[in-house]
Amino acid sequence: MGTTELLVKMVIDRWNGSIVNLNKQLNALTDEQLQKEIAPGKNRGTYLLGHLIAVHDDMLNLLDMGEKLFPELAEPFIKKADDSTTQTPTAADLRSMWEKQNSYLQEKFEEMKPEAWFEKHTAVSEEDFAKEPHRNKLNIIITRTSHLQYHSGQIVLLN
Amino acid sequence: MGTTELLVKMVIDRWNGSIVNLNKQLNALTDEQLQKEIAPGKNRGTYLLGHLIAVHDDMLNLLDMGEKLFPELAEPFIKKADDSTTQTPTAADLRSMWEKQNSYLQEKFEEMKPEAWFEKHTAVSEEDFAKEPHRNKLNIIITRTSHLQYHSGQIVLLN
Repeated sequence: MGTTELLVKMVIDRWNGSIVNLNKQLNALTDEQLQKEIAPGKNRGTYLLGHLIAVHDDMLNLLDMGEKLFPELAEPFIKKADDSTTQTPTAADLRSMWEKQNSYLQEKFEEMKPEAWFEKHTAVSEEDFAKEPHRNKLNIIITRTSHLQYHSGQIVLLN
Repeated sequence: MGTTELLVKMVIDRWNGSIVNLNKQLNALTDEQLQKEIAPGKNRGTYLLGHLIAVHDDMLNLLDMGEKLFPELAEPFIKKADDSTTQTPTAADLRSMWEKQNSYLQEKFEEMKPEAWFEKHTAVSEEDFAKEPHRNKLNIIITRTSHLQYHSGQIVLLN
């Protein structure tokens, strides 16, 4: 296995492992538990799950893997803070979106050739990318895995 | 910049970014806040900080970068669960250990040549490493960055 292939495997394995861990946590929670605040006065579990789906949807654009699956989530789960008076998707809706999105991402990731991960992501210009080649698609996975882990450490508190 | 160098930069940048983020969180907390539970009945901030130091100390061994700086932390912060009746280092002690350890790790990381990150870590045999070359030193940084982010998402709740 060449270095490129190896590195891509290491990064994608960590992404997949993070998804598996969060799925275990989610499966251990009832919808009622998921709707609770992770700590007094902090975000609800449903807000965090919606936030992760919205951020990963945005990632589809950055990776040039097509349109967002759930564009309606950006407003309530990225632009706005958690607000229990607003109508948002139910815990069951969010779980179903999360699963659908993960299957889709999995499929897209498997289609990628190792070298393709080192291409520029869509939010960086050709000019900047020439100077900053680390702003590639694989780096998006590295930073989004970090983000996913951060919020997984919060969702686990509901259990 | 070659692929190896680029990949190492991406992974180490994410580690460094995670440390910087947690330092910002820690600097925003008083010692009194850090001693509180992150959520009712959950770990205290001091336990999580001690846990991170202990895990990163263990990482020094895995990366073959010398002896642990604070071997006495493994017992109270890895083997045992949080227990407010046990005498453990104070918040101020832990902050000082954390800073000392980060400077040490920084120095050691800077000494590493990019290719050296692809060598096997100390907990895998030569035989297994031949079959599983992803069990290298850089992968330790990838998994420990994930771990660091997970607990940073919890420590931030103290603020």
